[in-house]
Amino acid sequence: MFSVYLPTRIIFGVGSLEKLPELVSNLGKKAMIVTGRKSTKQTGLLDRVISLLKKAEIEAVVYDKIQPNPISDHVDEAAKIARSENVDFVIGLGGGSPIDSAKAIAITAAMGGKFWDYVPVGGGKKPDKALPVVAIPTTHGTGTEADPFAVITNPETNEKVGIGYDVIFPKISIVDPEVMVTLPSDQTAYTSMDAFYHSLEAFLNIDANPYSDLLAVDSMRRIVTYLPVAYKDGKNLEARTNLAWASTEAGITETLTGVIANHAIEHGLSGFHPELAHGLGLCITGPYLLEYMFEETCERLAYLAKAVFNVDVVDTKKAAKTFIEKLYMFQDMFNLNPKLSTLGFKEEELPQIAKTSYRTMKGVVVKSPKRLSEEDLLEIIKRAF
Amino acid sequence: MFSVYLPTRIIFGVGSLEKLPELVSNLGKKAMIVTGRKSTKQTGLLDRVISLLKKAEIEAVVYDKIQPNPISDHVDEAAKIARSENVDFVIGLGGGSPIDSAKAIAITAAMGGKFWDYVPVGGGKKPDKALPVVAIPTTHGTGTEADPFAVITNPETNEKVGIGYDVIFPKISIVDPEVMVTLPSDQTAYTSMDAFYHSLEAFLNIDANPYSDLLAVDSMRRIVTYLPVAYKDGKNLEARTNLAWASTEAGITETLTGVIANHAIEHGLSGFHPELAHGLGLCITGPYLLEYMFEETCERLAYLAKAVFNVDVVDTKKAAKTFIEKLYMFQDMFNLNPKLSTLGFKEEELPQIAKTSYRTMKGVVVKSPKRLSEEDLLEIIKRAF
Repeated sequence: MFSVYLPTRIIFGVGSLEKLPELVSNLGKKAMIVTGRKSTKQTGLLDRVISLLKKAEIEAVVYDKIQPNPISDHVDEAAKIARSENVDFVIGLGGGSPIDSAKAIAITAAMGGKFWDYVPVGGGKKPDKALPVVAIPTTHGTGTEADPFAVITNPETNEKVGIGYDVIFPKISIVDPEVMVTLPSDQTAYTSMDAFYHSLEAFLNIDANPYSDLLAVDSMRRIVTYLPVAYKDGKNLEARTNLAWASTEAGITETLTGVIANHAIEHGLSGFHPELAHGLGLCITGPYLLEYMFEETCERLAYLAKAVFNVDVVDTKKAAKTFIEKLYMFQDMFNLNPKLSTLGFKEEELPQIAKTSYRTMKGVVVKSPKRLSEEDLLEIIKRAF
Repeated sequence: MFSVYLPTRIIFGVGSLEKLPELVSNLGKKAMIVTGRKSTKQTGLLDRVISLLKKAEIEAVVYDKIQPNPISDHVDEAAKIARSENVDFVIGLGGGSPIDSAKAIAITAAMGGKFWDYVPVGGGKKPDKALPVVAIPTTHGTGTEADPFAVITNPETNEKVGIGYDVIFPKISIVDPEVMVTLPSDQTAYTSMDAFYHSLEAFLNIDANPYSDLLAVDSMRRIVTYLPVAYKDGKNLEARTNLAWASTEAGITETLTGVIANHAIEHGLSGFHPELAHGLGLCITGPYLLEYMFEETCERLAYLAKAVFNVDVVDTKKAAKTFIEKLYMFQDMFNLNPKLSTLGFKEEELPQIAKTSYRTMKGVVVKSPKRLSEEDLLEIIKRAF
């Protein structure tokens, strides 16, 4: 038995951003735009969105302090502004960080209090309302445009936690590959591989179902075909379009099924080292996790060897092994296989990382096809060290 | 550019009907169950639903006059009862007819007046609200559990019209293959082929997009694999589950993209001859329509020859021709290729049928990959006569 629920209206395609005024005209007269510190200004995208809103006679309040691995302090600050400015809805403009922050702000502004009140490992309150959220992704990885999740870090505790509530499904998501062409190649690789791991983990999830399987395989295939193209030529719109759609598909798999232990581990890693890009962190431990769960996953991985990498190997175990090798080699094309020790991680902090991963993200760890304890997570992290 | 919007919560799988009480408990205290005259009583399903509602302390008002190719008179009568009984929500229980009627009743009860007021070729008013709709399909064909459409016939004018409004997306759809095992083999074939044509027509639609393509192909494959199984052994749950999911997938393609001229023609046929099963009508003209649009569709059909029927033919035109032949042969396995002349149709009524098809369903005719006039529709109907 499985459940399908995705109430977001997603507008996908080159040029779709121009539809913004008509799409949001009934959401109110004042919007908060939540964005990062630099790129949407440098590319002119922020100004473009402000003037598109003006066309619908909507006033914009800009909150532009969001950083990668966004923190709850900024969410609280922005929510306070949203309340005092009587903002009607919140637009997340940028990568996963501004959009997830917009979702968190939408809860905090509507409910009052602090954001951490609404985090299960924090205050544990369940929000029953939120301001409407509009997502305009400029990267093709998080899938947040098609899911009810937000990942926010508490800087006091290093807890990087994903929350999920129906009230923060975006009302509207505008996925325009044209606004993604300025994404640098390293970010192109990181975000694409984030999407890849959403799909791969959903495919291996014990709750996998025919709907998420279909989307997962299709999105992995697109990424394997088009990431090399976009990595070399960021302006290639066909490649960007395919990667953008792969990311949205992967987002839908998150909503339908969800991620497993690899995402839990990564939240541990970048919770402690916020400078680590999320997509890179996933690649670092991903192949080790697959090896660690080899017996439990080999039939599914064998299927993917053919479906994703077009490799025909009859023997199941050999095919599964081939998938892991191909994935590692694919990641190598974009320098996504560094050891943690080369990235400033210290051996003595690994136990604490494993502990935090397990505690804050146990809900996805238990969806892995092998039963994994905190010690198992530590072992996987050590192998990637 | 394309748009994704499906706000329905779909619960899919064997045993999912047992979730009814918890799923609808917040929709109110009084439900109208809209169903047909016989089968849900004979199988005991109606009683089971009534007692499941009782568990959630919900009172049931039963409206059980719905017939195949449901008519607007019944919608109006039921809506009047729903208003006088102060019903909170409407449950469509059965095949497409009761569920589509439930949607139409939900509009008419909430808005007032007559149902035909809200039909574009009728009164042309746009409904901005409806009672919440819960869909419990007992057939695997219409896809109405995953779309905003309802098809109702006006018995005074023979107009069989599909309406589509966001307010009648079901709030909840419970798709339980277990309640489909009693479907007789002829209905099993008719409804499966309805789903097949939803997917095929969406795939050929000028608005086809990667999302609906993916679902369309997957659903056609499932139908080709499992219809022969369920046709012989209706109790085979694996086959029913696959056909049920194929139908829901096909319903999603309707929402994402939509049908083309074959559905328009069929509405003409069964609008004039309500005894014609919808799925059978689609099969009768389907292959002729494909031949009529051969030049415009051959690349897409060639792709389907491989993707749906596993036929490897290199030459595009040959492959496309093979697809049409395979489809015809597949339909033949279930006696779905009769000529219209053997089913009580008269040659002299064909022009009127073509005219009504075109006038009432022009909106989908224009989505066909070949520009088709009323005369073209007549020519296709004549070939199937």
